Amino acid sequence: MNSKIRIAIAGYGNLGRGVESALGRSPDMELVAVFTRRDPAGLVLQTGGVPVHAMERIGDFVDAVDVLILCGGSKSDLPEQGPALAALFNTVDSFDTHAKVPEYFAAVDAAARGGKRVALISVGWDPGLFSINRLYGEALLPDGASYTFWGKGLSQGHSDALRRVPGVQGAVQYTIPSQEAIERVRSGSRPSLTTREKHTRECYVVLEAGADASAVEQAIVTMPDYFADYDTTVNFISAEELRRDHAAMPHGGFVIRSGTTGVASSQIMEFGLTLDSNPEFTSSVLVAYARAAFRLGQQGEVGARTVFDVAPGLLSPKSAAELRKELL
Amino acid sequence: MNSKIRIAIAGYGNLGRGVESALGRSPDMELVAVFTRRDPAGLVLQTGGVPVHAMERIGDFVDAVDVLILCGGSKSDLPEQGPALAALFNTVDSFDTHAKVPEYFAAVDAAARGGKRVALISVGWDPGLFSINRLYGEALLPDGASYTFWGKGLSQGHSDALRRVPGVQGAVQYTIPSQEAIERVRSGSRPSLTTREKHTRECYVVLEAGADASAVEQAIVTMPDYFADYDTTVNFISAEELRRDHAAMPHGGFVIRSGTTGVASSQIMEFGLTLDSNPEFTSSVLVAYARAAFRLGQQGEVGARTVFDVAPGLLSPKSAAELRKELL
Repeated sequence: MNSKIRIAIAGYGNLGRGVESALGRSPDMELVAVFTRRDPAGLVLQTGGVPVHAMERIGDFVDAVDVLILCGGSKSDLPEQGPALAALFNTVDSFDTHAKVPEYFAAVDAAARGGKRVALISVGWDPGLFSINRLYGEALLPDGASYTFWGKGLSQGHSDALRRVPGVQGAVQYTIPSQEAIERVRSGSRPSLTTREKHTRECYVVLEAGADASAVEQAIVTMPDYFADYDTTVNFISAEELRRDHAAMPHGGFVIRSGTTGVASSQIMEFGLTLDSNPEFTSSVLVAYARAAFRLGQQGEVGARTVFDVAPGLLSPKSAAELRKELL
Repeated sequence: MNSKIRIAIAGYGNLGRGVESALGRSPDMELVAVFTRRDPAGLVLQTGGVPVHAMERIGDFVDAVDVLILCGGSKSDLPEQGPALAALFNTVDSFDTHAKVPEYFAAVDAAARGGKRVALISVGWDPGLFSINRLYGEALLPDGASYTFWGKGLSQGHSDALRRVPGVQGAVQYTIPSQEAIERVRSGSRPSLTTREKHTRECYVVLEAGADASAVEQAIVTMPDYFADYDTTVNFISAEELRRDHAAMPHGGFVIRSGTTGVASSQIMEFGLTLDSNPEFTSSVLVAYARAAFRLGQQGEVGARTVFDVAPGLLSPKSAAELRKELL
């Protein structure tokens, strides 16, 4: 008899590898299969003994998997895979296109109800833990204002924009929360702040041979939408430094609620993340919510859910009595 | 037809007044009664038109109240009132004697099941929001260590100890989290820290006429259990300054989880509170969980529950669809 929760991974990129690694730290779960659209024979996993199958065969494994973790991207993979796979499996995904959540939820919900499955969508840290903290802030301190800051974190879109500047050979861009803005929020003064006022941009650029550094810097700091309206700094580095010092994918940020109770008592709630690896942390969140999806399925729930619908206790391998005794 | 959630308060001290004030900021709830063990005629509420009744008559109001918020103390009030009232009403309380939670849970659970009611126990910030963050930390980063720091906050027990020192006319004591210890934890180094290493103690003392300041200071900093093992500072102030500057009840603290994912990625989660008024914030948490208790009752749930059992979405007046659109 197998008493571990049987997990499978759909898509083996950064997220999939992170899920595999997080499962290695979760003794109540086991990885039973990885599904890929690449050639399964060419995929080398970190853990031995786990079979890799072609994505097109995934329908054959409906009875062998308790929860399928979808590790594809939000742009093109999930809009198609989310509904299709939620009809067959209990699923967890990290769909993060905020504006399209209602539409995605509706599609996955219909599919999951049809298949009598549970699908947890938009799991991770934003959307995810940050969303939960925005909700707690608003619900506990209704007279107040919420602030989300991102960073320090690598921004893929802005790094791509740098690489399109003539004379740039390679580059990365970090979004940095403005310390001054954070301190104003923490003071309880409830300032009005745009995303631009809350963040600065830090660029690390490798020049092509013969490129004019000051022309490149001008092109960057005046680039509309991406950099012109921000406090932007440009640092020139060598290709070797780019490889050595900027290969990681750090990220993080803060959700702050500044509210008033009683006559004029200032109350500040703050949640923050400082992440060495953005994809590995997101994967860790996906794995804990896979445990919750399994339990919701066992309770007979069907349809799409978000982190807002999941009681904290469902995320822990401990029993309710253990949690009350040890963590309350 | 009355579509608001009908809330009553049992016990009208700091917490009860805070609940009354928080209800004024919650348009979907209304305060329908306050119950007191004092003479009801002598109690003046902040809001007009709300009846005050004797606690002994509370059984007459079973059908008039959706959720009863218990605002008594954990030492002598709640151990008796919690089970007795959970048999009659859906209840929310802030029972905070950590070591006695399992025993209290069992008593309240049996009573609530007998009366087919829901009882949310140990709601507030610690136990409460801090507990939730300890759980999230442990579940999402199983390879890691958790740290709880308290303060800056007024400690009633330590203030009482100061007032027993000969020569002291009045005093307050603040527990201060050690900035050095916090920075060590935030660095990801996972230090072993005792409660004593994590906190310092700051005393504000008014001397009796003719008292010897240095003798009083010596008596304080060498007092076993309370101060001897801590880095303790003693500030002498006037009775006027004590009244003017130290009448508030600030508190707060941090829950930090320092964990590792992948091969060696450091991941830090941090939740912090900076509260001007400890009782008013606790009251605000009680009111949001009263909304959740009402909904759990409507879903047919019976028995005792803790914050671990409450999905975040149940705390908000917004619908699930609104939450997904606005906060996810």
